[in-house]
Amino acid sequence: MATQGQVITCKGMYACLFHLKPYLLLSVNLISTPISSIAAVAYEPNKPLVIEDVQVAPPQAGEVRIKILFTALCHTDAYTWSGKDPEGLFPCILGHEAAGVVESVGEGVTEVQPGDHVIPCYQAECRECKFCKSGKTNLCGKVRSATGVGVMMNDRKSRFSVNGKPIYHFMGTSTFSQYTVVHDVSVAKIDPKAPLEKVCLLGCGVPTGLGAVWNTAKVEPGSNVAIFGLGTVGLAVAEGAKTAGDTRITGIDIDSKKYETAKKFGVNEFVNPKDHQKPIQEVIVDLTDGGVDYSFECIGNVSVMRAALECCHKGWGTSVIVGVAASGQEISTRPFQLVTGRVWKGTAFGGFKSRTQVPWLVEKYMNKEIKVDEYITHSMTLGEINKAFDLLHEGTCLRCVLSTSD
Amino acid sequence: MATQGQVITCKGMYACLFHLKPYLLLSVNLISTPISSIAAVAYEPNKPLVIEDVQVAPPQAGEVRIKILFTALCHTDAYTWSGKDPEGLFPCILGHEAAGVVESVGEGVTEVQPGDHVIPCYQAECRECKFCKSGKTNLCGKVRSATGVGVMMNDRKSRFSVNGKPIYHFMGTSTFSQYTVVHDVSVAKIDPKAPLEKVCLLGCGVPTGLGAVWNTAKVEPGSNVAIFGLGTVGLAVAEGAKTAGDTRITGIDIDSKKYETAKKFGVNEFVNPKDHQKPIQEVIVDLTDGGVDYSFECIGNVSVMRAALECCHKGWGTSVIVGVAASGQEISTRPFQLVTGRVWKGTAFGGFKSRTQVPWLVEKYMNKEIKVDEYITHSMTLGEINKAFDLLHEGTCLRCVLSTSD
Ligand SMILES: NC(=O)c1ccc[n+]([C@@H]2O[C@H](COP(=O)([O-])OP(=O)(O)OC[C@H]3O[C@@H](n4cnc5c(N)ncnc54)[C@H](O)[C@@H]3O)[C@@H](O)[C@H]2O)c1
Ligand SMILES: NC(=O)c1ccc[n+]([C@@H]2O[C@H](COP(=O)([O-])OP(=O)(O)OC[C@H]3O[C@@H](n4cnc5c(N)ncnc54)[C@H](O)[C@@H]3O)[C@@H](O)[C@H]2O)c1
Ligand SMILES: [Zn+2]
Ligand SMILES: [Zn+2]
Ligand SMILES: [Zn+2]
Ligand SMILES: [Zn+2]
Repeated sequence: MATQGQVITCKGMYACLFHLKPYLLLSVNLISTPISSIAAVAYEPNKPLVIEDVQVAPPQAGEVRIKILFTALCHTDAYTWSGKDPEGLFPCILGHEAAGVVESVGEGVTEVQPGDHVIPCYQAECRECKFCKSGKTNLCGKVRSATGVGVMMNDRKSRFSVNGKPIYHFMGTSTFSQYTVVHDVSVAKIDPKAPLEKVCLLGCGVPTGLGAVWNTAKVEPGSNVAIFGLGTVGLAVAEGAKTAGDTRITGIDIDSKKYETAKKFGVNEFVNPKDHQKPIQEVIVDLTDGGVDYSFECIGNVSVMRAALECCHKGWGTSVIVGVAASGQEISTRPFQLVTGRVWKGTAFGGFKSRTQVPWLVEKYMNKEIKVDEYITHSMTLGEINKAFDLLHEGTCLRCVLSTSD
Repeated sequence: MATQGQVITCKGMYACLFHLKPYLLLSVNLISTPISSIAAVAYEPNKPLVIEDVQVAPPQAGEVRIKILFTALCHTDAYTWSGKDPEGLFPCILGHEAAGVVESVGEGVTEVQPGDHVIPCYQAECRECKFCKSGKTNLCGKVRSATGVGVMMNDRKSRFSVNGKPIYHFMGTSTFSQYTVVHDVSVAKIDPKAPLEKVCLLGCGVPTGLGAVWNTAKVEPGSNVAIFGLGTVGLAVAEGAKTAGDTRITGIDIDSKKYETAKKFGVNEFVNPKDHQKPIQEVIVDLTDGGVDYSFECIGNVSVMRAALECCHKGWGTSVIVGVAASGQEISTRPFQLVTGRVWKGTAFGGFKSRTQVPWLVEKYMNKEIKVDEYITHSMTLGEINKAFDLLHEGTCLRCVLSTSD
């Protein structure tokens, strides 16, 4: 209900576009034409990305064209780029952890408008499909059949091209580009005051770790927690577990350098599997009087996934798989592990409903309730992306944020 | 608080022992001497059980000697008897699904007394250990170190002997005998009016199935359920799922004869994997518009356990392992199954707290809220136990109840 005499004030750089809304709504499809955009194109697996001009077509019905300002790199980009992802399509534009500003919107798009600050979400949220309405999952099914094969739903074609040849989309986001086109159900509108060079991280790794704890495991105060892998995702798990209160957190990583940073995120104890002869699950069981209440695999290694399950306490220990394993690999264990009360789960984007909860996470960051800045160890430009990929494999890099404006 | 003028009336055959309580409490350790008991002894794996006189020593501190009146056979007995159980010890007295009357109690036993009607419980409940106090599991740890190796806690010896040679206990129950000795934490005192020849089934299979639904999966009204294996345990799962209300229940069994009975327990649809070329998980996914909300493996076959997980709906489907697989066998799946929201669990004795909840299940049976009689397809005497074991492998037998008083 509109309050009489309501005053709308302009906040932030783009908010004054609010006053232009009626005009924009009328003209939007007329003014939207193809845009030239600098992008990093992956032409072939494992070959350096090529920085070049890409044509980005106007958004069609239900689509949003976004000017990406900052994008980070995540292991899923590296995984597909490496050629190990059997669903990877080339040539494509990778990238899925980013933030930007809506440039134009297609027909029927009502929830965002040009100028809105947004985070593109690889996990859509349509609020209408069986999944969205179930109240049990964040895995919206609305645009999956298109994003899974690198195209847009409307015409099952790509909006990217170089010299007239199409370039595939990636994860429905393709953020390694100055401009991208995404489905409207994949756009989270955020507070325009939020610093985009930071909150771009809320597009993947940080929410995944926090949500694994808050939504998937639902860790209670006083719990004993083990985290396997102390990269960005593992550290976000630590932060999430710490907020549960009174948690004892054991971090496990083969790189002992990770411990110093991990302490700041709440990790109380550190175990390096390389320091032990025994299987790591036995080490943790001994250390925690029978096993942990919750464990999280944040690496993507199937034998560590098994260890993470088996270091859980008999009767109730719950293990959450967060890491993404190489294609074709399988997890296994003795069924007795489950019959005696352990629970095996997994999480995608931490169970967060993207459009609804990413803006909420941005608020939490603005209120200093969650860390974001602390994960950013490197900043570069989009032109330096190949160097940034190299960094991903170095132990010192958590997140590298690329600015797309040269 | 005792009400003034409270009148205690004798109910049932043994309840008048109540009035003898003071005398019994004084004399109990004096009158308890070794007893001669007819028992079925398993001398070697896979060799017919030998019916013979066994000496049953008096109960020591914290122990209860029970006159077993009726005992049923379960697949776990057959499994250990077959020699496939690496923890099986011979010679032993098998049996763990039974009912009887307390004959005498050892020092310090306060919660039952001679004459009480009881069900021996292989899953103890001490109410004091870490597990019992957790509020998260029924897997009491109090006597596990003794029952796991066929002896009693007090002196780590057996109470059974033949010609002075000890015979191992089994699962802390050993009910294939006219008399047995169990730990006091393993005795559920039940309503003396309950027919022991029926409620003996509440010692294992029926509670396991009901509890898998009620305690482990917590099936909600309107759920889509798949049950793999329609033996006693699978049928009890069906009954449990039916009580959740408005459930659609698909039963899967390689023996199509099972369907007629299964209908009576609430199974709406039947699938025989032998009628299909496709993997059974795909058949179920197609049949249920994307998969079931809950699945239960009630066979003990690791490849069916995988199918049961993989026929669950993306986003929320939960699979519960109830069947006990042969030793050394492992379950496996792609981790993506869990990352996309499926949950893998297991259950032991259906998650029921034995001493607290078995009496409650007996009440439910007395109030006609749960079936028991319907599982009993055969009745014999203890002397015919080898014939009863043969029956277990025939499709027509659900539960065979043996009377010990030939
Ligand atoms: N489920 C989801 O929605 C989701 C979302 C984002 C990322 N992920 C996945 O999460 C995983 C972690 O991502 P990240 O960005 O934190 O990665 P990262 O590479 O920064 O961190 C991985 C850490 O694991 C350590 N490690 C490697 N092998 C190990 C072993 N055998 N034992 C112990 N530690 C070991 C490394 O030293 C490193 O510190 C990746 O697999 C990524 O694809 C999943
Ligand atoms: N977790 C526990 O606490 C617990 C307690 C009791 C029993 N159990 C276990 O539960 C399982 C079932 O016990 P039950 O007494 O009902 O056994 P049962 O043998 O009576 O029933 C098993 C059913 O599975 C069917 N079957 C066999 N192979 C199959 C296949 N490949 N696909 C489909 N159906 C198949 C059989 O035809 C039969 O109807 C056993 O493994 C038993 O050890 C577990
Ligand atoms: Zn990512
Ligand atoms: Zn949806
Ligand atoms: Zn049993
Ligand atoms: Zn206990």
